[in-house]
Amino acid sequence: MASTYPISKAIRRDLGKVEEGLKRLAAEPDGVLADACGSTLAAGGKRLRPALVLLAGTAGSATLAELMPHCLAVELIHMASLVHDDILDDAPMRRGRPSVHAEWGVTVGIAVGDYLFSKAFEVAAAAELPSAPSILAKTSVDLTEGELMQRRAACRADLARTEYLARIEKKTASLFETACRLGALASAVPGPAADALAGYGLNLGMAFQIYDDVLDVAGESDVLGKAVGADLRDGTMTLPMMFAVEETGAVDWLRGALGVDSPGAVADALAVIDRTSAAQRAKDVARDYVESAVGRIADLEPRGLRATLRDVGNYVIQRYH
Amino acid sequence: MASTYPISKAIRRDLGKVEEGLKRLAAEPDGVLADACGSTLAAGGKRLRPALVLLAGTAGSATLAELMPHCLAVELIHMASLVHDDILDDAPMRRGRPSVHAEWGVTVGIAVGDYLFSKAFEVAAAAELPSAPSILAKTSVDLTEGELMQRRAACRADLARTEYLARIEKKTASLFETACRLGALASAVPGPAADALAGYGLNLGMAFQIYDDVLDVAGESDVLGKAVGADLRDGTMTLPMMFAVEETGAVDWLRGALGVDSPGAVADALAVIDRTSAAQRAKDVARDYVESAVGRIADLEPRGLRATLRDVGNYVIQRYH
Repeated sequence: MASTYPISKAIRRDLGKVEEGLKRLAAEPDGVLADACGSTLAAGGKRLRPALVLLAGTAGSATLAELMPHCLAVELIHMASLVHDDILDDAPMRRGRPSVHAEWGVTVGIAVGDYLFSKAFEVAAAAELPSAPSILAKTSVDLTEGELMQRRAACRADLARTEYLARIEKKTASLFETACRLGALASAVPGPAADALAGYGLNLGMAFQIYDDVLDVAGESDVLGKAVGADLRDGTMTLPMMFAVEETGAVDWLRGALGVDSPGAVADALAVIDRTSAAQRAKDVARDYVESAVGRIADLEPRGLRATLRDVGNYVIQRYH
Repeated sequence: MASTYPISKAIRRDLGKVEEGLKRLAAEPDGVLADACGSTLAAGGKRLRPALVLLAGTAGSATLAELMPHCLAVELIHMASLVHDDILDDAPMRRGRPSVHAEWGVTVGIAVGDYLFSKAFEVAAAAELPSAPSILAKTSVDLTEGELMQRRAACRADLARTEYLARIEKKTASLFETACRLGALASAVPGPAADALAGYGLNLGMAFQIYDDVLDVAGESDVLGKAVGADLRDGTMTLPMMFAVEETGAVDWLRGALGVDSPGAVADALAVIDRTSAAQRAKDVARDYVESAVGRIADLEPRGLRATLRDVGNYVIQRYH
């Protein structure tokens, strides 16, 4: 289905301005830092988090200028965490290009992450919303804790589903939630509606990550921009793997491939997963989260926004990458 | 001379409260993150940056509660940058203990830095001073740029003095400046006096780093808590090395040791430096910066604070570690 998500021309145009803003920030530092930031930025990305800021903002009356700092901040935090995570996972590729540390070295990778991170707070602190830096900082703590939970649970084929869900909530859903909350608060949306939007974001983020985990075992490398099976190689246990273990009634096939640097072992495990209904079952769980997300905004005004957010939800669990 | 710096009992007691605050923050996360943060914290440190917040604060009327978030924030940023820098420099020791990545691995090292960093912004954002997150974010960008300048200039025995000074201003002096500025602003110190205190901090930071660089070529390992010659091994060109090159009229002895993993080569280069007056000349430059620092606060009230800040300046260029 959709290779891009269904938003209005107005929002798409605003996202273009966000892109320009990101480019300006990436060009600010000196030398290799600017080169590496520019390269990270040019690799693209869906910019889903700034889009959520803009969409949540349409529930109120904020101008683009008022929403812009939050759009930039959430995307900068996201980019910073990707750059650092790629070092931790020693991921060679990101979005079809070499990852920052693969191209520029670990030193530059750590510094680029720190820079993007600092810039996010600088931008957020300059916004009109006094609570922005604090909300963003809490989220950034969540992202770090989530990434560490992932590393700590590495190669644990017996990981409990609750642990998986707690991890993806911190690692992914928290920033989706924050994007929606910041957009709503910047737009002076009343408390209950702002909470509804944040709840939408949280559930959407859960769906997004679960579907991402499905793509990693059942997607196609050339569309993903990275090799499939990355989670297997990293030793990151995901929901579709859990379902496949459950369905096969065995775990040995997974233990032999989880965190093992062997293309053959990974291919074998992917083949096992492919023979089960694990991918479909995980997609169903993702769909449940989208339904919860949509349920949270059942009373949200305007009605057109509700429809768009539902469409975004459907996109998230039907995208190719 | 002094192994600790000359501050009043009241400030020393307040620093004890800062230490308790840092401990509470370090204990907040789960599992290995808390262990690693706790270990970093327990390694100690002079807590000079929070002390500067407190001292600058005494130029106005702020309570400890008003200054506390800034004390915590500057020390957290400092700790975060140390943890990440140790990874970049692959430094095995810090303050007489294994560095975080040496003890817990690079993954935990990156995550601990990110966590401390996020916490700094969370704490700063909760302060009563709206400009705090922005000031802190700019400084944190400076620290990152300074560290990258250092890596970029690695092994360049012909580094210009202006480049060295620009680097240490970003890497060290900027956070000293910010500590003083935040203390002054939180204490509602009038603009000119706040600028004077910030100028004091900036110059003090320059002196501190230059003297640090002297200790690295002329200090004693057991007092420093890390091996001498670390800058030589890392390939980090410093002011005393520049003076020694100037005085010997040769650079080959330095090229043979800069960034070279050879205890013999490092010992030889240290012996060459020791036969010159490079350490003393660099100490003189550090003293000049202390004099500039003290000159910036010539009109500052109360007079007792002026005397204390002068004593702190003298401590900085006479300490053992």
